[in-house]
Amino acid sequence: MRRRILEAATELIARDGIGGLRYDQVAELAEVNKTSVYRNWPDRSALVADALTTFGADVAPLQDSGDIEADLVDFLEALAAATASTQGRALLTVVASAREDPELRAIVDEVFERRLSILEHRLKTAIERAELPPVESSFLAEMLAGPVQLFVTRGPRAFTRADAARVTNVVLAGIRATHGT
Amino acid sequence: MRRRILEAATELIARDGIGGLRYDQVAELAEVNKTSVYRNWPDRSALVADALTTFGADVAPLQDSGDIEADLVDFLEALAAATASTQGRALLTVVASAREDPELRAIVDEVFERRLSILEHRLKTAIERAELPPVESSFLAEMLAGPVQLFVTRGPRAFTRADAARVTNVVLAGIRATHGT
Repeated sequence: MRRRILEAATELIARDGIGGLRYDQVAELAEVNKTSVYRNWPDRSALVADALTTFGADVAPLQDSGDIEADLVDFLEALAAATASTQGRALLTVVASAREDPELRAIVDEVFERRLSILEHRLKTAIERAELPPVESSFLAEMLAGPVQLFVTRGPRAFTRADAARVTNVVLAGIRATHGT
Repeated sequence: MRRRILEAATELIARDGIGGLRYDQVAELAEVNKTSVYRNWPDRSALVADALTTFGADVAPLQDSGDIEADLVDFLEALAAATASTQGRALLTVVASAREDPELRAIVDEVFERRLSILEHRLKTAIERAELPPVESSFLAEMLAGPVQLFVTRGPRAFTRADAARVTNVVLAGIRATHGT
């Protein structure tokens, strides 16, 4: 039941933003009593946080095969799928609207930072191994993840592995050309 | 009064997503009668469309000085400001949630495409002048605008002119290194 409620909440946030998250609608979509939602999540922010984080779509896996280029292509492909998922879209609606709400901002920051910190960690390792020139890893992460996010939200076609390779190639070539090695 | 209503609608969408756009709340925030909102926008989609497009924050200016690098730095700086504005954030919440609503999708596509088509047009001119290698301009536009959008939604600091220059340099160097010239 917990799962059904969280799926319903995620769906409503993805469709209408957090303004669409009303307990009666969550209960109706999950086909449970409204009291079940209130009992498990007396706090609305906790329900938002669980909806955005429970299914793990916020995290794309990132391997360390020793080949930074191949690992980034895999990661960007997985990131595109995560971004296009119901939970990924729910996250994006909340990210855009969370500016004035400190509590919500903290939830979204945590999810977003977790996603990007996986990427940043892998980039740091590659820099240490001199596979990449020394560059601020948060900047590099934005250069890689930003185009994927824009591509997915813009539609109209799916983000492919070839797209992931193209983004990776351009960014790494650009970093190498502007920062030496 | 029209302006006050649209500002209120934009504010509510930016804060809560389109689920937050209820006529009674728009009227309250704009300090007008609810009937004034209904009379001017009997159709909710038209209100959303006007809220997202009226103030022009969806369009960042892009000059043609003959120097593609300088023009792109100016554009990305303006794009960051537009994205960080109330209307820019309202647009992002709707972009993420507009997948299942064809009418809303059409509105958002139009605004988004207008923004990117200005960029694409300028890139095409630069390609024709051989300032840039021949590359798909929509791909190049995503490589430039994507990092800006992610940076702004992620916060926590403002996107500066130095950031705009850094993104431009890396992308153009990467495109030149991978596509010849």
